[in-house]
Amino acid sequence: MTQQRLVVIGGDAAGMSAASKVRREDPAREIVVFERSPHTSYSACGMPYFIAGLVDGPEKLVARSPQKFREKYNIDARTDHEVTELDLTKQRVRVRNLADAKDSWEPYDQLLIATGAEAIFPKLANSDADGIFGLSTLASGIRVQQFMDRQLPRRAVVVGGGYIGLEMAEALVRQGLQVSLVERGEQVMGTLDPDMGALVSDALREIGVELYLNESLTGYESANGLVSGVVTDQRTLPAELVIVGLGTRPNTALAAAAGITLGEKGSIRVNPRMQTSAPGVWAAGDCAESFHLVSRRPFHVALGTVANKQGSVAGINLAGGYATFPGVVGTAVSKICKYEVARTGLMERELQQLGLLYRSATIKSKTRAGYYPGAGWITVKLLAEQGTGRLLGGQIVGLEGAAKRIDVLATAITAAMTVQQIVDLDLSYAPPFSPVWDPVQTAARQLLGGSD
Amino acid sequence: MTQQRLVVIGGDAAGMSAASKVRREDPAREIVVFERSPHTSYSACGMPYFIAGLVDGPEKLVARSPQKFREKYNIDARTDHEVTELDLTKQRVRVRNLADAKDSWEPYDQLLIATGAEAIFPKLANSDADGIFGLSTLASGIRVQQFMDRQLPRRAVVVGGGYIGLEMAEALVRQGLQVSLVERGEQVMGTLDPDMGALVSDALREIGVELYLNESLTGYESANGLVSGVVTDQRTLPAELVIVGLGTRPNTALAAAAGITLGEKGSIRVNPRMQTSAPGVWAAGDCAESFHLVSRRPFHVALGTVANKQGSVAGINLAGGYATFPGVVGTAVSKICKYEVARTGLMERELQQLGLLYRSATIKSKTRAGYYPGAGWITVKLLAEQGTGRLLGGQIVGLEGAAKRIDVLATAITAAMTVQQIVDLDLSYAPPFSPVWDPVQTAARQLLGGSD
Repeated sequence: MTQQRLVVIGGDAAGMSAASKVRREDPAREIVVFERSPHTSYSACGMPYFIAGLVDGPEKLVARSPQKFREKYNIDARTDHEVTELDLTKQRVRVRNLADAKDSWEPYDQLLIATGAEAIFPKLANSDADGIFGLSTLASGIRVQQFMDRQLPRRAVVVGGGYIGLEMAEALVRQGLQVSLVERGEQVMGTLDPDMGALVSDALREIGVELYLNESLTGYESANGLVSGVVTDQRTLPAELVIVGLGTRPNTALAAAAGITLGEKGSIRVNPRMQTSAPGVWAAGDCAESFHLVSRRPFHVALGTVANKQGSVAGINLAGGYATFPGVVGTAVSKICKYEVARTGLMERELQQLGLLYRSATIKSKTRAGYYPGAGWITVKLLAEQGTGRLLGGQIVGLEGAAKRIDVLATAITAAMTVQQIVDLDLSYAPPFSPVWDPVQTAARQLLGGSD
Repeated sequence: MTQQRLVVIGGDAAGMSAASKVRREDPAREIVVFERSPHTSYSACGMPYFIAGLVDGPEKLVARSPQKFREKYNIDARTDHEVTELDLTKQRVRVRNLADAKDSWEPYDQLLIATGAEAIFPKLANSDADGIFGLSTLASGIRVQQFMDRQLPRRAVVVGGGYIGLEMAEALVRQGLQVSLVERGEQVMGTLDPDMGALVSDALREIGVELYLNESLTGYESANGLVSGVVTDQRTLPAELVIVGLGTRPNTALAAAAGITLGEKGSIRVNPRMQTSAPGVWAAGDCAESFHLVSRRPFHVALGTVANKQGSVAGINLAGGYATFPGVVGTAVSKICKYEVARTGLMERELQQLGLLYRSATIKSKTRAGYYPGAGWITVKLLAEQGTGRLLGGQIVGLEGAAKRIDVLATAITAAMTVQQIVDLDLSYAPPFSPVWDPVQTAARQLLGGSD
């Protein structure tokens, strides 16, 4: 084993989790990581907070630097090195050193593709104007901050009402900008049912974001090379800064060009051990496919938690051990100023597409005992299978302390618990933390046929 | 069904949950509730916060008044009525109207005993002095507040380092008193392992509470009928107010005198439908036995959550439906100023008593991403069965946001999940809520053999 050379493409969560795991199991293995950006192991999720001024600088988002990987872990982490081609037959990758633009071929015995995902950035009229940014890498976050420092924009438009769009809307509000948000759906947060998404839309309006719902981006206006407006199918919004938060797509062009089988949304198809269709080639993280435990279908999600888990599983297997990644239940959480939003499992539209019959209940409760200072509102929606009562999905919107309750529902869904079993759960209670029936249980009781 | 008369003894969580459930199912049933205190459906758990001045007045702790039960639910809730004898043969109870001290016999077709638990209050030298209080009913909390208003005590001693003792210590510190706490164990919070209890002891010292550990109460000193000191096996502590927080015992003297079978710690033995050994007699709440899903043994716990659940189950059955109470996993949570403490499952001592072999891991992590403002420390300890890896217990001590994570562990224990399954859980992550690996998963990874 120790004579083999492991090459990892991509030096963020999945790639470095895997590399670290292999190093831990096999102190002598040669491990080389090629990362095209200047950074390793950073928190992409932290960028909105860095731009909001809540985090001192981008370096705070870096968990482990290339130097640290080299010196402490004996992992040859080469940043500013872009892999441009896979040669599966000869077991080698072509690498460009971005510093001098020189290419070389690097051999591997095992290859892990952890190329992540990139922000979707449609080519539209004037989309090359300065001041229009997608956000995916730490470098892209730094570019936004530098642009803001240089241009002092006062009006921003965020395109897309998903997690990154909403977190960036908050960040820009915090920095004193006037912020508009364009979303083609009827509500923001399209991973919630519209009735729950409406609560998030209200929250955004309350913090001063102007919402343009049911409206689609068609292009931009620019002046002197700088963006000056966002054009939708209904109007033109003045803008000195634009954040495009239309989601991400897996970075899988390299893999596709090499003939590796792709799956859901263009992600790399993997088996539970994170092996691709090509012998000796593994994939993990935002570029790799996942599996949804509720729909029982292939699924793609770009999230640090999943990337870390898949990387860890790949690492154990690459080190000669055995591990499998069982899949996800679609959990996500976000904070928009004082509002918290979370979801897990499937939403109504997804259940309908699967042909599953379900019942739902939505309740409003408090995050703490009603008489305890700081008790805030929390709305919980549950979806359960008709007949079996099996929990299929949960959504939460509320104030401080609301969102992390989604983890109970994610755990219950994973365990295939019924709504009755959720009512029966021995959840913690004290007045500073919860009403005597935790709100997730109040929702479950409602679903069962009404609380007293 | 509707011709029957249901008599409920005890008008707090269990009794009124049951009565409300029966009313919901059967609008015509005659329902009479006898409650010896002046209050119904109050939050006993809220008393420390009312005494701390965080809650405006005791009436805020009352969820539903006797008037409301009578008028809105047509439940004949008679407060200041004490049941003094059960006559199972003639299906009647002897009731004393405390207003005029007159007794009468009241017939029943079905009887629910929901007499709760009372604070353990040892008879010791001078224990009848004014200023020494146990806490169980709302009335007892009001007496403490009235005493404080009248006597303006400056030095308080809390005897017992369990939940109520610690919450009262905080309450008294908040009210500006100098507080000492006497605990006969080596650490406070004896429902945690000593290593985790030590963190809570440290937290108490940090908020200014003087701790006297490994020390037992032997009596009191008094002057002019007022308490003046607490005597332990090692010293006398000056005290103008004493809170005795030595736990509670089930109020089951009535049931025992009537020959109803008792179980764990003197609680009333019930089957899963909450039926006692006597035909037509049911029990629920702090006076009734429970079942521990991990030890698989009868168990007694006095908690509002359990009382509500048992009351609800009893109510469904009393109304002619079918429901069972599956049991508990021993979850509890508390807040002591800024510190949060939680536990679920079994602790080391309990596992040893059961002869279970286990492994444990304790980790220190953060409540949010390390770079996010307000990230505080959190310590998580997990206990898992040797061989199977099944989670058997969890304990958490930490700052804001720490404790409610215990619910994930309570859910996982209920579902008989292994430590590997906890690592695999799709828990929510965003920087304001968690590190990328939730601390409970970091602890699980540690237990599996180390994180990277």
